[in-house]
Amino acid sequence: MVSVAREEGTIDDIRAILGNDITIGAYREKTLPFPDGAIIARLSWTYEASEENNEIFGQTQSHIEGPPKNGLHFMSKDSKKYASTGDWEFVQFDDGQPLTDAAKISACFTCHALLPQRDLVFTRCAL
Amino acid sequence: MVSVAREEGTIDDIRAILGNDITIGAYREKTLPFPDGAIIARLSWTYEASEENNEIFGQTQSHIEGPPKNGLHFMSKDSKKYASTGDWEFVQFDDGQPLTDAAKISACFTCHALLPQRDLVFTRCAL
Repeated sequence: MVSVAREEGTIDDIRAILGNDITIGAYREKTLPFPDGAIIARLSWTYEASEENNEIFGQTQSHIEGPPKNGLHFMSKDSKKYASTGDWEFVQFDDGQPLTDAAKISACFTCHALLPQRDLVFTRCAL
Repeated sequence: MVSVAREEGTIDDIRAILGNDITIGAYREKTLPFPDGAIIARLSWTYEASEENNEIFGQTQSHIEGPPKNGLHFMSKDSKKYASTGDWEFVQFDDGQPLTDAAKISACFTCHALLPQRDLVFTRCAL
């Protein structure tokens, strides 16, 4: 596991970011750009108040994950195959089905491309 | 990974809850109480605004993990050894050192004991 995070606004989810060994190694060694073979996964869920926990604690403080939300996202590094999208392949699954809408997949790159100084990866890691 | 969550109030952290295979199996099969050998880990970090991401998105929405906070917690199920604390051993590490203050460790059980109907485990799992 690389990180956990919470996005408000229209995204409004809580997420975990996972990485394979190449990704974890790159974070540990502070290697940028990430080497070919790095895979980063983003799992996200709705962000929900836990009435159950709040009742036990006697105050409003608990937020837990609800159902999956905003799809399952992968970034996969291959500088030969994906040079046109910053050396990353962007893949998304919604309800278990791969996203095939080219315009939507392109939007992944458009946003991540705002971070060239971090090799298009938003997630920092405390490793 | 079992779950991600966020606690406000004095706890004020973002956390990931992990489980070993016995724990994951129990969640999947909805087995309660958890069987002996179940181990649940709670990793938590400070909950911080990401000015970096917010600047890129053009609005305030991003929260990420900061440094570790509130210790590394484990619940380990052994109905023979830990019958006096609900069949669970409670262990905490702060800054890599095991917590040895008996009163503080006892406080783990005191709070978790509020949930007998869920075998003392706050975390639900969407598996």
